[in-house]
This record gives sequence, structure tokens and C-alpha cells, in this order.
Amino acid sequence: MRDRLVELFRSRGLVPGDQLPSEAEIAELCGVGRSTAREALKLLEQEGMVVAERGRGRFMSPLGALKVERPITRFESISSMLEALGYQAHTVVLSVAEQAPGDVVREALGLADDDTVIRLERLRSDGDDPLVYSVASIVRDAIPGPVRHFDWSGSLSDMLAAHGHPPVSSAARLSAVELPEDVQRRYSLGGFGPWLLISETVITPAGRPVLYAEDYHRGDAFAFNVLRR
Amino acid sequence: MRDRLVELFRSRGLVPGDQLPSEAEIAELCGVGRSTAREALKLLEQEGMVVAERGRGRFMSPLGALKVERPITRFESISSMLEALGYQAHTVVLSVAEQAPGDVVREALGLADDDTVIRLERLRSDGDDPLVYSVASIVRDAIPGPVRHFDWSGSLSDMLAAHGHPPVSSAARLSAVELPEDVQRRYSLGGFGPWLLISETVITPAGRPVLYAEDYHRGDAFAFNVLRR
Repeated sequence: MRDRLVELFRSRGLVPGDQLPSEAEIAELCGVGRSTAREALKLLEQEGMVVAERGRGRFMSPLGALKVERPITRFESISSMLEALGYQAHTVVLSVAEQAPGDVVREALGLADDDTVIRLERLRSDGDDPLVYSVASIVRDAIPGPVRHFDWSGSLSDMLAAHGHPPVSSAARLSAVELPEDVQRRYSLGGFGPWLLISETVITPAGRPVLYAEDYHRGDAFAFNVLRR
Repeated sequence: MRDRLVELFRSRGLVPGDQLPSEAEIAELCGVGRSTAREALKLLEQEGMVVAERGRGRFMSPLGALKVERPITRFESISSMLEALGYQAHTVVLSVAEQAPGDVVREALGLADDDTVIRLERLRSDGDDPLVYSVASIVRDAIPGPVRHFDWSGSLSDMLAAHGHPPVSSAARLSAVELPEDVQRRYSLGGFGPWLLISETVITPAGRPVLYAEDYHRGDAFAFNVLRR
């Protein structure tokens, strides 16, 4: 819906300072309910493209003139990001294990000393071309029962949602790194230059951290956008 | 003010779902005006730490539990970022030139074919330790008069503001890169591993792009945080 709204504003030639159509008009133009329209407007307000002025309505902000195609502030799964970027991505499960977490993961997930996590190592690739190397640490009791022989190649978001823990937002940290040496060696992932690492603590609507994800994006294939103010 | 507010909430032990003090209380507690308090609350709302519910007041969001110390969504100069991180940063001006911009810069700044830019190359370092290598391309007429012999080691934001073009927000792009080979060679900046590149188009309150900045942050020294939802 957010993207349709951006498209609508663009097609109308709206420029910074212009007033937006009302919620009711947007709902009608896009054939959705008013609450859906309001949600999408709120998202654009959070991103900074839209400013709401009390009693006056909503306007395109000066930032509205700047193009931000895939804002880093939007929580989205790697699968949907890759799809939106036009990749035919394939998921390879590299390893699955139940284990005691390291200190960083333990702290991020707020775990007790004897809590364990499911550690899932995966690689997204386009044909033989590696794109994203990921390590997911999932709170053990978020997915009950034995997990060793699950099919882990599907969407982790869907699996968590199916168990009543839909991941909806996260606190993320972006940095530029080399892929760890042992990972390069073990999976023949050397020689691809710098990687953009997003480490994030993912929470449910109730604010429960269920997943700590470390996603290494190939530096020459990915960049993220953001509006700053 | 934003940081003081976060500190206030933390000191009060507010957790997700808790109602925040009113604007008036916050203003009084922090010894600022109500509009300053409102601005800071609005910023936290934009970052996702705070949710406003019409007619009910403001609450800590589920994201409020997640720590985000220096959100990438906040527009801040490199100087203030370095200062906040505790660096004693020193600025070295590497080069200044007036020249025709490349295609990327021309498009980002919306320049005509015969427009020129001031290209300013600088290095921030802590002692002999390089931190940030920057290339700033400033719209030529934003700073009138001859510029070759200015002291370019100070704040670019302040200089632009003094000429009536305060930079207030930007559209930024984050990626993981190597420092360009010629830069590594010319300024002895090789061997520092990956760099986090933030390329941004910086605009004034009127929405005018005045500066295109490419800031290479040493990967082993910097990371940026963001809330995603």
C-alpha cells in the first residue's frame, strides 16, 4: 500500500509543499478502506516524505522530492527484499543446530544462562552467485518440538508467525565488514570484497525478542536508503 | 533534547506500553518550553520509540525497549557525530577545487550542464588514526565569491547556514565498499579494510539540494543504528 501511495503522488505530480488528497479520497482512489489509507500515510509520515499539520491536513515534505526506493526503516524479510530487487533467489541451508548462544545473542534476546537458541546458517544466491549469508539465532521455545529435520529453506518470518510470534519490527545495526575467515573458507565465499552487515534484534507486536539475525549483504550488490532529518 | 528525553524515560524505568509524562510535565522537568518538548517527542515518534494515540496520549512503543543510540535517521554533521562518540577529531583538508561535477553529482543536485561545484576532499582523524574520508560537492552559487583560499577545516554545515542555506535533511544511501584505489595510494589510506559509505543529497528547509556528500567511515570504527518496522 505504501508503494501504491508513493506511485499515486508521483503520478499526480505532487511536489514539496503540495497538499495531499484526503484519507477518504485516497481510500477511494486505491480501492481500500480508510484505516488502510491512514496506516500507509502514517508510514510515509514516519519516513519523512509526508508532514501532517494539525487542523490543516497532510503535505508533501521537502524530503518528498528525494527518492528513497527501499528505506532501511521498513522492516522486511530478506526474501521480499530480494524479490522486490528482481533477484531469482535460491536459499541454501548451510547448517542448523540447537546450542547455547554467545554473549551478544544472549544479551540481545534477553536470555537466561541456561536458555538455548536454534542457530540457522543460510545462503541466498542467484544461481551460483552468492547474495546474502545469514546467521539466525531463534529463541528455542518460539518453535517447539524437534527442529533438526525441518525444511528450513522457507520463510523464517512465516514460520515464526505460524507459531504465534510474527516478527514485526527490529532494532538494527549496520556496518561494513569482511565475511568471517572460517565462513569464507568453509563455504567458498572468499574474494567478494566488503559485505554490508545488518545485525538485528527482531521483536513481536508484544515487544518480545524472538530472533537475532546477522545478515551479510554482498557490498557490490546491495545498498540501503534512508531519509535523515 | 532528544537524548535528554530518552534519558528521562530510562531513569523513570518506562517500559513498552507505559504512558509518557505530558508535554507540560516534560517541559517542566527538563526546564524547556513546551514547543521544544513537543519537537523532541515528535522526533522519537518518527524514530518509532514513541506511539501517539489520538485522544489518549503518548506511550512507549514495543520498539522503545530496544536501544538505539545514534539513529541513522537523524541528520547530523560528521563533526557532531564524532564528538558524541568521544573522538578528538582533527580535520585535514586534502584538496579544494571548482569543477564540473560528474553525472551522479549532477543528477543528485539537479544541476544544469554548465553548472559547477566546489569539490572538497577532507579527512577526519584521531591523531594519526584515519576515521572518515569525505568528498563534498557543494553547489557553486551556494557560497559566493572566490573559495580557493577559505579555511575549509571548519563545519560545512555552519558555513552553508551562514550563507542562508542551512542543511537540515538528506536522502542517504548506505553501502559497504573499499576506499577507491587512487585515494588509498595518494593519501596512504590502504590496509584499513572495508569502509561504510554514506552518500547523501543534502537539502535546505526549502527543499533545495545544496550538497552531495560521500562520507567513507572506517568499517572497524563505525556502525549505525536504526529501528525498522
